[in-house]
Order: sequence, then structure tokens, then C-alpha cells
Amino acid sequence: MHIVCMPAQTKNKKISMAKEKRTAIEPTRQEDYPEWYQQVIRAADLAENSPVRGCMVIKPWGYSLWENMQRALDAMFKDTGHTNAYFPLFIPVSYLEKEAEHVEGFAKECAVVTHSRLEAGPDGKLVPASPLEEPLIVRPTSETIIGEMYSRWVQSYRDLPILVNQWANVVRWEMRTRLFLRTAEFLWQEGHTAHATKEEAETETLKMLRVYETFAQDFMAMPVICGRKTEGEKFPGAVDTYCIEAMMQDRKALQAGTSHFLGQNFAKASNIKFLSESGEQEYAWTTSWGVSTRLIGGMVMTHSDDDGLVLPPKLAPLHVVILPVLHNDSEKANVLAYCNSLKDEISSQYFNGDKIKVSIDSRDIRGGEKVWSWIKKGVPLRLEIGPRDIANSAVFAARRDTGEKKAYSRAEFVASLPEILGKIQNNLFARAKKYRDDNTSEIKGRKEFYSYFTPQNPKKPEIHGGFACANYDGSEDVEDMLRKDLKVTVRCIPLLGGEPDGNCIFTGKPAKYKAVFAKSY
Amino acid sequence: MHIVCMPAQTKNKKISMAKEKRTAIEPTRQEDYPEWYQQVIRAADLAENSPVRGCMVIKPWGYSLWENMQRALDAMFKDTGHTNAYFPLFIPVSYLEKEAEHVEGFAKECAVVTHSRLEAGPDGKLVPASPLEEPLIVRPTSETIIGEMYSRWVQSYRDLPILVNQWANVVRWEMRTRLFLRTAEFLWQEGHTAHATKEEAETETLKMLRVYETFAQDFMAMPVICGRKTEGEKFPGAVDTYCIEAMMQDRKALQAGTSHFLGQNFAKASNIKFLSESGEQEYAWTTSWGVSTRLIGGMVMTHSDDDGLVLPPKLAPLHVVILPVLHNDSEKANVLAYCNSLKDEISSQYFNGDKIKVSIDSRDIRGGEKVWSWIKKGVPLRLEIGPRDIANSAVFAARRDTGEKKAYSRAEFVASLPEILGKIQNNLFARAKKYRDDNTSEIKGRKEFYSYFTPQNPKKPEIHGGFACANYDGSEDVEDMLRKDLKVTVRCIPLLGGEPDGNCIFTGKPAKYKAVFAKSY
Repeated sequence: MHIVCMPAQTKNKKISMAKEKRTAIEPTRQEDYPEWYQQVIRAADLAENSPVRGCMVIKPWGYSLWENMQRALDAMFKDTGHTNAYFPLFIPVSYLEKEAEHVEGFAKECAVVTHSRLEAGPDGKLVPASPLEEPLIVRPTSETIIGEMYSRWVQSYRDLPILVNQWANVVRWEMRTRLFLRTAEFLWQEGHTAHATKEEAETETLKMLRVYETFAQDFMAMPVICGRKTEGEKFPGAVDTYCIEAMMQDRKALQAGTSHFLGQNFAKASNIKFLSESGEQEYAWTTSWGVSTRLIGGMVMTHSDDDGLVLPPKLAPLHVVILPVLHNDSEKANVLAYCNSLKDEISSQYFNGDKIKVSIDSRDIRGGEKVWSWIKKGVPLRLEIGPRDIANSAVFAARRDTGEKKAYSRAEFVASLPEILGKIQNNLFARAKKYRDDNTSEIKGRKEFYSYFTPQNPKKPEIHGGFACANYDGSEDVEDMLRKDLKVTVRCIPLLGGEPDGNCIFTGKPAKYKAVFAKSY
Repeated sequence: MHIVCMPAQTKNKKISMAKEKRTAIEPTRQEDYPEWYQQVIRAADLAENSPVRGCMVIKPWGYSLWENMQRALDAMFKDTGHTNAYFPLFIPVSYLEKEAEHVEGFAKECAVVTHSRLEAGPDGKLVPASPLEEPLIVRPTSETIIGEMYSRWVQSYRDLPILVNQWANVVRWEMRTRLFLRTAEFLWQEGHTAHATKEEAETETLKMLRVYETFAQDFMAMPVICGRKTEGEKFPGAVDTYCIEAMMQDRKALQAGTSHFLGQNFAKASNIKFLSESGEQEYAWTTSWGVSTRLIGGMVMTHSDDDGLVLPPKLAPLHVVILPVLHNDSEKANVLAYCNSLKDEISSQYFNGDKIKVSIDSRDIRGGEKVWSWIKKGVPLRLEIGPRDIANSAVFAARRDTGEKKAYSRAEFVASLPEILGKIQNNLFARAKKYRDDNTSEIKGRKEFYSYFTPQNPKKPEIHGGFACANYDGSEDVEDMLRKDLKVTVRCIPLLGGEPDGNCIFTGKPAKYKAVFAKSY
């Protein structure tokens, strides 16, 4: 893909360009947000659709984001006392049926395995053979199969708590899919814990919610609201579902992680019983919590701009890319030698506990194309190094997040790299938080609410709406109405949202909550 | 599980015991090797069978072995220029059909997805609904789906090589399963590379074989023979399959990893074509290579003894366990404080580039039970710390591999820990290599060969046979005969096996190879 364009951030630079193009990504966010999102992913080479309906291929640059997320999350899970294990991909249909709400939630869209062999049919083509006695579904989530195993592992209170996490693929036969955000197969982690008391399980549920909050904010630089879901929005089979909700740049909400207090529902369904300290047979209290490759979509939509991907340094596969500027072959050896020694110096520096990742792009392609390829990939810092920089022992550095370009002395740059990367990380968070706060409104009446969520031009709806905080009576009728009229849902009842300060803006009845409403992914 | 037993290695110690028991694992390797294997896994709590036919649950201790294997292998893959990616779980049946030998190899045992929904049947039970237009199989390996993607990614020689690896689960509907060694679902990595030339692809195939050899020998302490498979034993669709073969303690061979040179077979099947430097349309040359959770089974069977698991320090989840010896409550605080400070000191030491992993077991259970639980889990070093040790500033350490117990001064022990762990690692490799070499024979005639592989007591076959090196004419007739008569196969034609030095011992015809024969898993 050849890019001949001039983005907003470098409009003073002379690059030959097709006049009609202004940004590396077409369309822009304002022009067509969903299409912009697809194009950012494509331009950064993160993932693509596969020929298998709804299943994506996560390409190396995208997968390395997932690896970095996994590493950070896994360390946080282990720090909070969890270990990893692995449970079967398949769930017998009879297991799913054990929990009534659960089966209701997952039976409608699942991959069903019915045969264990293929054989040549009458026309020579392969057809399924050897039917299974009981069909299996590919796990959409593992509460029921893990519950069955826990029921075998738990006899006494001494066997509790069980604090286990699984990194796995899961399948939900979604009809409308979108890379990272909603795919038939996705990668995730699912924590499943069992406890002797209700209090301990509730504490665990909230502890893991806070782990997700910390990860989203500190690593992804994505501000989130911690809250509880309403009855209508909670996980099928849960007593309470807690979530972190983030705002994308189209002002829609993205549910980025959930932590479920399952009460004794699944313990009863799976018969997870234990002999308590006082000698009684009791059901355990369980939790489950998960985040998925959806986070990558959230990160893309939180920070990227009309020139492509923007990555927070704490999760970037590469922090610094060095681009040698070569005008003729005679300079080549000298410039590359300088770049190599600079690379060694940079990679001996640390950021966030790990060595700084740096690479030299010495591909033999046009300079503009090369620069743009790294802009679109979201690398936090680009260094252009030519003979003049070498003569001055200087470094010319461009920040991806702000577009700022600055000359440093080499020594100064290398020494301040951890600080610069930290600044980029903090800037991304501050910018995203400002965007969210600017687009969050306290709404006092129904009419104002409807107007807030209605685009001005219904034929070509611009980016509109945001997070609406409003007094709400907690009724499902209101939820149904808003879903139908505006495609708006209660995102959560924030844990720090405060008490309602008036009656429900929709019904006039006493308000139960101050809730956050939004359109969402 | 309560263990009341006295193993050979501690027969001088006074532990109350049931007279008839001699070892922590019953039966012993000599008595019943397959059952011993199951019991070692059970006693170490590595894994267990799930209610889903043929699928195992990998429990935390077992999964942490896989995590350690992954970490080491992943670093080696990246050091050799590979990146990770992720491809769909499902493969359309029409893709599988593209390569004739491949479909022959995998269609017979696979999980077939035929529906995308469950609905209540006439009796209220859930039945499959919404049949798929084309059935999908759960990947048994991913050559065909990855080949399809590569055909989209590759246009010109500039797009080559593609050096990608995937960590994933795969499913093969095996009829007879055994924890880790042969399960319907297992975890593995599969590398898939595409190259512009035959030579480059062949070099890659052998490079990755050497990576596996290094990993097996340096990390797992498991000696392996590198070789090439015969026509009858190679991967369905490959031109050449290379393997590493290890000897278990029942003298059977375990194929521990394979690296396939696929020629242009899959490139033609998937249409991976590129414009060469000279302007011709050419098919790419591809390779694939993989190791799986089977390695855990191989590690268990290589090193464990009649008291349970023995772990090589480079892959152990825990290097040192500290067992406080408490006779009465008054000592408790003092002993635990000493153990904690010892733990801190130990964990600041490094082994093989990482901090030494140490834990204190302060559970309130009987001392014997506690000691045995760690013996059975295979932790390389156990420290028993009581008031007397504290008074002497001493450490009493037991090695899992040799059973050796030794008193050290605390400072001496801590300082020499990396060396002790290194010695254990080396001892395990040397011991396994000696066992293999002692049970490898040059066989000069057919009668000798048959006698070598025939147990003395057919009713209760003792551990017998081993690796047989023999001159072989390379014919499939011989392979069929040996498989039928003795359940013996050609394990490989060793890369360093030398030339045949006589005629085929089975047919008297000119020998083509000096091959290694064995019974196998």
C-alpha cells in the first residue's frame, strides 16, 4: 500500500501529495468512524478477516499487542494469588443446561460439534460421519465445565479458596462481527474462583475489577468507569456483574472487562459443596472475570488519529524506530554504523521495568513511505538520522502522540528517553480522560436526554452523544424504551457515582441510582 | 491423599510406615510402567481426565511447567527471527481437501462443527439447530488455513520469507488417550514459514529441529536423537519430516518434536505464489514445525522415579521449598522469621538468568506428609529448618534427584545455590543419557533383532528392548512386518548416524540407511 498524502500534523512539511488527500487514513474519524476504525487496523497490519465466517486472523503486530497485554495482566493475576490452568475446549450440552439463565444466554449462538470423523459422501466430497452420542459445544465461557472440575476438587473448607485463571480461545456465533470488538472466535482470559464465604467471593469480584481498572488506566492509558450492571445487562447466571466502561472517540461506550459475583448459582448447578469448619455441608461461592482481545479494539479507538494507530508506550511492541536518512551510497556505511551504536545505547535503557525496544528500518524504500509506515503502526518515537545529525552528534525525534518534532543532543536524548516515554504515556491518558470528561453530561430531563442522543443530521449522523449521567428508577421498562428509541443502554451504576439527587428523569418515580447511559459497542 | 511409606532413598529415617509399601508411587516403574506414569501425574497433581472424552484438565502445577516451556521456546523462536500470530480455530472441510495426503491423515479423527445454535427439542432437551452451509473441523493442525492466508499476503519475493509461529490448542479425535502423551485436545505451538527458495526452506526446517534439540537437552535435560522419518512415518503432505526422538524409562521412544519440509506441496494446494526477482511467477517453499504438551509427558517419563516427579531446575515452577520444623508453638515465630529471611536471601540469587523461585510451606499438616508432598511434586531442593539449624546458622538440604542430604552453613548454601541447581540439571541429563546409551544396541541380524524386542515373560512383560541401530534397505515391507510382528517402528534415520556398514539385516539386500528402531508412544 503506497501512501501519498499529507496529514494534519505535518502540513508544513513538503511531501509530494495528491491534493484531495489530507490524512494517512481515509476516511477520517469525523467522516466515517466505523470505516476509519477498519482502515486504521488495516494500515497498521493488526488483523484481518479470515475466510472462516466471523473468525479473525491476528497478524504479528496485533498479536504482539496481545502478548504485551497478557504479560502485564498475568503478572497482576499472579501478584493477587492466582495460578493458571487449562480446561477443555468442549462443553457437553447437558452441562450448559445446568444453569437456566446461562443456557438461555449462550445456546442461541454457539458452535456445535456433532461428529468425530469425515468420510467421502456419494459425490466423493467429505461429509460428517460417526455422530457423537451427546453433542458438544465449543466453549463460549467455561463456568460449567470448570464448575464440574471444582466440584471434584473441593471437599472441605481447607480446599478453598481456588484461585485459577485460564488463557484461552472462546467461540460465540455472533451474527455481526467486527475485528477485535466482536468476533466469532476471540482470545481471552477467564478467572474462576471458589470461596467458602459470600464476603470473600464479593471481595474477590471487586479486587479483580480493580485489577482491570489499573491495567486499563496505567497500561492502556484508557480511562474507565468502574460500575455495576443492571439486571438486564448482567452476565447470564450472575448475581452481580461489575464492569469497566471506556469511551471511544465516537463517544460510544466500550465494555472493556467484567467481573461477576456468581453467588451460589453455579456452585448449586455444578454441586460444588464443602464441609465447613463447623462441620456443615455448604455450597461454595464463586466468581468469574475476564478481558479479551476486544481490549485491542478499545486501545485502537481510544488513542488513534486520522493518521493511524497511536500506541501507549507501556504496550508498544516497539518504542523507538530509527530511520537512517541516506542520500547516496557513500554515506551509507557511516550512517548505519551511527544508527547501530545509537540502537545499542537506547536498548540498554529501561522503561517501566523492561529494556527499551528499538529497531532500525534500513529497508530500501522511499523515505516518505517508510516514515508513514511507522506513523500508521503507532510507534511512539521516530528518529531520523542523517549525515548532518551525525556531524552534530544529534538526534531528530518525532513523537507519534503529538506530532512534535525536536532536535536533541544524542546524550541528552538517550538519557531522557524513559522520561519522554513516560510523558507520552501520561499525555495519552490525560487526552483520553479530557475527551471523556468533555463528553460526559449530567442530564436533568427526559427531553434533554433524547436530544443528547439524537444526531442533528439523521441521514449522515455525525459523532454525537456521550456519557449521560442521570437519575434512574432502576426499572427494566426504562431500559427497554431507551434501547428501542435511542439504542442507548445503562452502561453501569458507577461505584463512585454518588446517590441520586432527584426523581427518575424518565418516569418521575423516586430514583434508585445515578446511572451512566450511552450508546455502546 | 495420605502417604504412609518409606522410599528407598530415606530408608534410614524413622517414619511410621505400612510394611508392605516401599515407595511413594505404587506401582513402581518395574511393576507396571503405564500405571506408574498415571500415578506420578496424579501424585504431583499435574493433570487429570475431564468428563469430556479424551480432553484433559491441566492443573496449576502441570500448567506452570507448560508456561516455563513456552517462555524458553518462545525466546528461542524470537531469537531466530520468528513472530507470533493467531489463526482461526476452525477449518472449512474444503480447505482440508486441498492436499490429498493431508486430508487422508486428518479426516479420520476430527471434531466436526455442523450447527451454530441449540434449541429445545420435542422432549425439552437441547438439540443442534441452524445447520452450517459447509461443516467446519476444529483444527488438527493449521497448514491449510494458514496457507490460505499466506496466499493473500505473498505477492512478490519481497514479501518472503514469512516466519510466523502460533501458540494454540488443536484437536485430534484419538481413540485411546493418555494424559499429555495422546489427548483429543492438546496445546502446542506450530511454526509456519514460507520461503522463496528450496534451500532456504530446507535450512529453516533443520534450524528449527536444532532449536528443539537444544531445548530438549538444555532445558528438559532429555537427550534426543535428531533424525529424518521414513516415507511411512512422515507428516501427511510433507516432503521430509525431521524429528527428535527420546528414550523413556520403559525404553520406548517418544517422538518429542517434528520439523517438516513441505516442499511446494502446500504452496500449490493453497496457491502461495510470488513474483520472483527475475520476474517469474513461482510457488513458495514452506515448512512447519511443532512441539506440544506431550513434552510434559516426556519430561515426566525421563526423570521421575518410584517416589514421583523429578523436575529439571530450568523448568521447575519452584526451585527450593523451605519446610519449617516446628515441635511446639513457642518456637514458631522464631523459626518462621528465620525461614522468611532465608527465603528473601535465596530469592535474590539467580539461576539461568532468572531469580531463584523459593517458597515456604507453613501448612499445619504432619511433617512426613508435607515432605512427601514436595518429593512427589519434584521440587529440586527441600530445606528443613528447625531450631537447631537456626542455632547453628545452618541449612539442611535434600536433593530430589539423588536423595542426597547435606548440612551447609547458611551463607555457603545461599552462595552455592546456582551451582547446586546447575549440578542437578546436569546430573539429570547425564543420568538420562547413560540410560539411553546403555539401552541402545547395534543389532547385526534379524534373529537378534526379534529377540531384542521380545519380552522374556510374555504374560507379564518386563521393561525390555531399547533403541536398535541396524542396517536397513529402506523398504516399506520391512516397516510393515516389524509393526505387525513386534510393534516396532523405524524411529528415524539419524542425521549423525553414519553410513550403513553391511546389507539390510531383514532382507539381505543392499542397505540404504543405518536406522534407529524402537517401540514407541
